[in-house]
Amino acid sequence: MNFVAALNDVAAKNLQVLEEQIRQAISDDEFIHEACEPLFKGGKRLRPMLFLLCANAKSDFPQEKSMPLATTLELIHTASLVHDDIIDTSKKRRGVETTNSKYGAQIAVLVGDYLFAKAFQLVAENNYGEEVSTVLSKLVKNLCVGEIMQDRSLYEVPTLSEYYTRINLKTAIFLSTCCRLGAIVSKMERREVEKLTAYGTNLGLAFQIIDDLLDFFGDEKITGKPRGGDLKSGVITLPVIRALEVSDESQILRQIVTSGKDVDAAIKIIQATDAVDYCRTRAEAHIESARVNLPPTLQISVARALEQVADFIVDRTR
Amino acid sequence: MNFVAALNDVAAKNLQVLEEQIRQAISDDEFIHEACEPLFKGGKRLRPMLFLLCANAKSDFPQEKSMPLATTLELIHTASLVHDDIIDTSKKRRGVETTNSKYGAQIAVLVGDYLFAKAFQLVAENNYGEEVSTVLSKLVKNLCVGEIMQDRSLYEVPTLSEYYTRINLKTAIFLSTCCRLGAIVSKMERREVEKLTAYGTNLGLAFQIIDDLLDFFGDEKITGKPRGGDLKSGVITLPVIRALEVSDESQILRQIVTSGKDVDAAIKIIQATDAVDYCRTRAEAHIESARVNLPPTLQISVARALEQVADFIVDRTR
Repeated sequence: MNFVAALNDVAAKNLQVLEEQIRQAISDDEFIHEACEPLFKGGKRLRPMLFLLCANAKSDFPQEKSMPLATTLELIHTASLVHDDIIDTSKKRRGVETTNSKYGAQIAVLVGDYLFAKAFQLVAENNYGEEVSTVLSKLVKNLCVGEIMQDRSLYEVPTLSEYYTRINLKTAIFLSTCCRLGAIVSKMERREVEKLTAYGTNLGLAFQIIDDLLDFFGDEKITGKPRGGDLKSGVITLPVIRALEVSDESQILRQIVTSGKDVDAAIKIIQATDAVDYCRTRAEAHIESARVNLPPTLQISVARALEQVADFIVDRTR
Repeated sequence: MNFVAALNDVAAKNLQVLEEQIRQAISDDEFIHEACEPLFKGGKRLRPMLFLLCANAKSDFPQEKSMPLATTLELIHTASLVHDDIIDTSKKRRGVETTNSKYGAQIAVLVGDYLFAKAFQLVAENNYGEEVSTVLSKLVKNLCVGEIMQDRSLYEVPTLSEYYTRINLKTAIFLSTCCRLGAIVSKMERREVEKLTAYGTNLGLAFQIIDDLLDFFGDEKITGKPRGGDLKSGVITLPVIRALEVSDESQILRQIVTSGKDVDAAIKIIQATDAVDYCRTRAEAHIESARVNLPPTLQISVARALEQVADFIVDRTR
């Protein structure tokens, strides 16, 4: 059972339908189906589930109206993962072989493009209107700009503000968009739309900060990735930024992170500082902001589920 | 001066505005602008120009309504070229270095994604409605399926019907979509919409057949590519399909084309058959079908321009 669905009845009822709609969305073409089916076997469905929770936050929202957009959000997320994996050295994603590893880069590019196009087709055919389509196309643009920013500044130490810009584009805008779209389609008041957007943004910032922490200190058995993978590939994140600020060995650390070599030594230096606590405190502050931004007008069961989603995100480090 | 614009006053007036709108569309982000600007320096603008001609085919259509969609069509075309070039060995496109060669595959994937997203943003923001958005997302899906089909059957001899399916998806649907959208936005009658779509389909089929012929027998100085490039990379096209049918040396030819080696010998075998005439005759038949499908209700200047576009397409082999 999906963890968000476990928190809320409506989400649980929607999950099965969502899985069926995803299956249908990738069934137009035989090869696409073969290539995409394994891609959707794993995954938390966090994005469509956030959207569905928000769409149902004040009163029940008709499933036939919510599902195409929920499906669209998961297709966009998966398309961006397929494209991310083209260069990424990891051969597995969500427990299965990546499209790139299985079929090569050209097919992986095309499968990702197909999923993006299918996502926009679902939105077009279901008459969500100009605002929803605009928000979605801007979302994809932002994902690209965030990834480009990361790719163009590998092995460079970002300022705190540059780090935040990047994780906002890469992650937070996606989660905030899911919440925002839920509020828009269910015709909430503008104030509530903005508040749920702020909830999603803070959720996303916390999510990425915790992800960046787990990359250094997570249990490899759970994360499925070797420790320090980001650093090896030149992606410099918040624990490093903090350690560079406070460590006695910041010169050595700077040398390591700008070369990507001797990552284990870097982890030791970071661990000797307050970087872990610092990151966790920041993430918790965002979770608190997320919580504070939940409009008081929501149905109690949805508000509780959205709070628990937030808790889950920081709890991943414990 | 763009060749389509040279044929028609309205197209000429639109061309400059189109170039400015393309420039604006890639100016949201500094790096995107740097990476994309050279991509748009070359190119015939055939797709947006076909759309603009058709949109203005019965009476003048307001530029502010046509331009965002014209720009969208060129952005989609360029995005697909950027993605095609990721694996393609050619380092140049439209006379400039490919994004892949200049910045690497990851950035090329992201730049293409950005252009697709920007294209869909322009459509969403300009309220073209459900039908236009659906047609565009299906277009991108078809481009992907066509490319995947080609990539999955390299070094395999297609049947004539498989070849047609592929060039329809890869090329003809794009040109027919441009014509169809012009007819849709200018609110032509359904019969005229279908006829202009059929014009575009036949134009596209002829275009790709001639392209496939030029790959073998074109002037390298004009095509900018070494002869037999398709065959070397395993793409088997109409001249080969015909030569395999009629040549005395078809067994040798089959061996060559399924291995991609000794392309010069293949060219000689093909040249000794009627394959060139056969391809040209087929292309001319499609051009004739294109012409026949032009609705009699069009303004004379546009009808003439659309006929000349068709002529230009076969004239490229002479």
